[in-house]
Amino acid sequence: MTKENVQGAGEEEQQAQSKKGLKKQQKEAEKAAKKAEKQAKLAAEQQDTDEDDFAKDRYGICPMVQSQQKLDRALVRVQDLTPEKAEQQIWVRARIHTSRAKGKQCFLVLRHQQFTVQALLAVGERASKQMVKFAANLTKESIIDVEAVVKKVEQKIESCSQQDVELHVERIFVISQSEARLPLQLEDAVRPEGEGDEEGRATVNQDTRLDNRVIDLRTTTSQAIFRLQSGVCQLFRDTLINKGFVEIQTPKIISAASEGGANVFTVSYFKTSAYLAQSPQLYKQMCICADFDKVFCVGPVFRAEDSNTHRHLTEFVGLDIEMTFNYHYHEVIDSITDTMVQIFKGLRDRFQTEIQTVNKQYPSEPFKFLEPTLRLEYMEGVAMLRAAGVEMGDEEDLSTPNEKLLGRLVKDKYDTDFYVLDKYPLAVRPFYTMPDPSDPKYSNSYDMFMRGEEILSGAQRVHDAQLLTERAMHHSIDLEKIKAYIDSFRYGAPPHAGGGIGLERVTMLYLGLHNVRQTSMFPRDPKRLTP
Amino acid sequence: MTKENVQGAGEEEQQAQSKKGLKKQQKEAEKAAKKAEKQAKLAAEQQDTDEDDFAKDRYGICPMVQSQQKLDRALVRVQDLTPEKAEQQIWVRARIHTSRAKGKQCFLVLRHQQFTVQALLAVGERASKQMVKFAANLTKESIIDVEAVVKKVEQKIESCSQQDVELHVERIFVISQSEARLPLQLEDAVRPEGEGDEEGRATVNQDTRLDNRVIDLRTTTSQAIFRLQSGVCQLFRDTLINKGFVEIQTPKIISAASEGGANVFTVSYFKTSAYLAQSPQLYKQMCICADFDKVFCVGPVFRAEDSNTHRHLTEFVGLDIEMTFNYHYHEVIDSITDTMVQIFKGLRDRFQTEIQTVNKQYPSEPFKFLEPTLRLEYMEGVAMLRAAGVEMGDEEDLSTPNEKLLGRLVKDKYDTDFYVLDKYPLAVRPFYTMPDPSDPKYSNSYDMFMRGEEILSGAQRVHDAQLLTERAMHHSIDLEKIKAYIDSFRYGAPPHAGGGIGLERVTMLYLGLHNVRQTSMFPRDPKRLTP
Repeated sequence: MTKENVQGAGEEEQQAQSKKGLKKQQKEAEKAAKKAEKQAKLAAEQQDTDEDDFAKDRYGICPMVQSQQKLDRALVRVQDLTPEKAEQQIWVRARIHTSRAKGKQCFLVLRHQQFTVQALLAVGERASKQMVKFAANLTKESIIDVEAVVKKVEQKIESCSQQDVELHVERIFVISQSEARLPLQLEDAVRPEGEGDEEGRATVNQDTRLDNRVIDLRTTTSQAIFRLQSGVCQLFRDTLINKGFVEIQTPKIISAASEGGANVFTVSYFKTSAYLAQSPQLYKQMCICADFDKVFCVGPVFRAEDSNTHRHLTEFVGLDIEMTFNYHYHEVIDSITDTMVQIFKGLRDRFQTEIQTVNKQYPSEPFKFLEPTLRLEYMEGVAMLRAAGVEMGDEEDLSTPNEKLLGRLVKDKYDTDFYVLDKYPLAVRPFYTMPDPSDPKYSNSYDMFMRGEEILSGAQRVHDAQLLTERAMHHSIDLEKIKAYIDSFRYGAPPHAGGGIGLERVTMLYLGLHNVRQTSMFPRDPKRLTP
Repeated sequence: MTKENVQGAGEEEQQAQSKKGLKKQQKEAEKAAKKAEKQAKLAAEQQDTDEDDFAKDRYGICPMVQSQQKLDRALVRVQDLTPEKAEQQIWVRARIHTSRAKGKQCFLVLRHQQFTVQALLAVGERASKQMVKFAANLTKESIIDVEAVVKKVEQKIESCSQQDVELHVERIFVISQSEARLPLQLEDAVRPEGEGDEEGRATVNQDTRLDNRVIDLRTTTSQAIFRLQSGVCQLFRDTLINKGFVEIQTPKIISAASEGGANVFTVSYFKTSAYLAQSPQLYKQMCICADFDKVFCVGPVFRAEDSNTHRHLTEFVGLDIEMTFNYHYHEVIDSITDTMVQIFKGLRDRFQTEIQTVNKQYPSEPFKFLEPTLRLEYMEGVAMLRAAGVEMGDEEDLSTPNEKLLGRLVKDKYDTDFYVLDKYPLAVRPFYTMPDPSDPKYSNSYDMFMRGEEILSGAQRVHDAQLLTERAMHHSIDLEKIKAYIDSFRYGAPPHAGGGIGLERVTMLYLGLHNVRQTSMFPRDPKRLTP
């Protein structure tokens, strides 16, 4: 694109723009024009040297890939570069991870996702001086296509994932250039905290990471975290589908703020107002009343809580379960804990590489669990805490520090990082929680914990419209606002229970990480709405 | 619960209540009290007759299932009641679908999900007169536990799904009572439109269905639709995971309205404003720039369009794909069309019962598709329309009627209900669409159609920050608002393409239905926010 084109487009739209917008756009246009000039200059320089360059067709900057042609060329992935490919001439597309010129040679480390390989250009029969210089000047993170011969190496290349081979580059073309100045360095972003402090090496703070998430997500650690998280979702669903569950989709825009109306985001909805669902709770239950029997859903839930902690987000992904049972809600607890155990086993067996990759930067103990899952009653937990010196009432909720402490006590006593705490005090649970039939102070409700932090909250639900009305009134909830919900139970409703799991917390705690922003690709909290 | 309890709870909360709220609650309390009185009366009546009833322990209303005990009793599912179970004594939990008393006998049809079985109570050794009367008086849709002997029948029971057996009931207990007056009758709700008009039989209009969705979802048709829809999601994900895709979760609350800011819902976000994402587009692309290579996501997307048509919702479920390619975006089209074909095959092979169930109420032709998928260029489509008498310009977008017409023309000519229309005019596509390299009037973009309606829109995206800036300016988009998006492409970006599929549309069109509200459990449109 030339300067004229850019400004032409600008002029065409001038009238629709505010003055301020226009100024910005002109600035952008000038910037783009400067860049174009610079590139033209570079191209001219290259042409000057082209004449005496025998390798001039073997390198350069490709025109932008605009699907001009269907090239019949196979690209080998970096992870597939193994000694079996030795002496083969192949094409690879990868990023320039690092580059180092050394006399007549240039050493590149090429990266694709979490895999790296060493590549070598040397002045000689296949490469001119100009070509090696061109390679040496390429900016880090640029994407290139190289044609190369795969060579076995005698000494393992410790700094690369592909340790037994290197590439002898014969052609090198740029597919997409990176700007020279990166907002963060990938090697800094994977450095374990504290390490390198003495040598004055940097680590990257969380806001810088999140502000430049596209680059931060390229690190081996991020790649591993989010591949494992994709696995959590897959294991969750596969397990439930095998158990006969049906996946449902529940609306996120709702007409009335349930559960009293606190901590809910308001949406402008045409000429009226609506809210963002704090959970799919009511809809899951309607599906139960509609005879789907066992349902799950995976989707965003929204909490307008002004909590700036390591484990709160204003938007997170809920893995939700609801199911009917025959006679006792422990049938549901068993189903949920088995699902969690299948997830833990699946992660352990299928994501060991990812776990170890994350551990390199964030060391943690392997995640331990029992079969069957340990289930303690709330009062047993309280007794353990009291024995450890905590003072608390019978009907008092657990504070976050006490949850953590109880997690450590349980780990010491039972050697598990996962357990269920059953029969919470009725007073600390939502209005739709089924009271305990033998003691009205308690309820048929439970939380599940990983490494001492809550990842699931659930309960048997009240399935009787009359009792539900009484419980809502007891909680001072406006009955008019939950009329549709209560009415769902008037035409025959089976006993049922369920729970909601926080995906980001499961990933965080399974990996032993310490901030839920590390396991949310684009986290949202009271202070962060971008990128 | 007694009257005292209810009012006690009311008093406890009085101060927190507005006067209006209080009145409502008192009314509710009175209603509850009346109901309790009525039940007490019924119980008293029963006691009167109990004394001379030898079967009095064989029937009745169970206390609410509150997980009082872990009963060691297996429940057989209605669908498993087959001749192999003949002469076995079993327990079943089901709803009363219909009930008919006839002299000393009572015939019930019991239903669980889409399965039904006939059950018989007859005065005799195992059942008293009072017991048969009790059964005959039970309200439709109540959930009951029955103990019964499975009996083979000589003549098939045409009106039930289990045609070869019936149940001889020996015990019958109510688990959950339905109110007597149902807002709609299930048999009306599954009646094909037009059928029964002469006999004055009712069908149920859409608003009544949606207002009483919990009952409407119990019909065989609804059960089949949403089980099949769960299958669409599962097939979509399984196919992509097999192809090496990673599932991502993208934020729904975003800081800036992309794509110009029209048709976007505003959210109050603490002290500022935010928006609901119209698509995961920008986030999918950031993941591509972050080297995830092939990503998909399944989640809600929001459109504040005041469109009241059969195919528009303000909130629907997007099945989104984005992937890098090597040299040509047709690599991506092939991947998406293959995914769709896998979905069509999976539905055909695994959901035949559901398809036929829906067809009973809403007849349609079986869905046809080709392998490989038919791909036409936009101008070919325009030529077909012109040959059929339509007048339109080369760069004009297709109207909905023209899309429908083209669908019919394509079906006639190629015998397929699924095809791709490629190379749309650049002017009618979003700013981030890659222009055609050979003709700037067109673009590397495509729509996919099922039965003549659009289900996917996609394109090669501009992966170059400079060209993207120019395109955004051409569309008069405020660059400041999409800065983070454009910046994502500054540090090396691979060529990529993708698309977004509307789940509800896929289900609707695959089944040959005519309104997207039938395939959204709890649809949202400009006029509907409930239930």
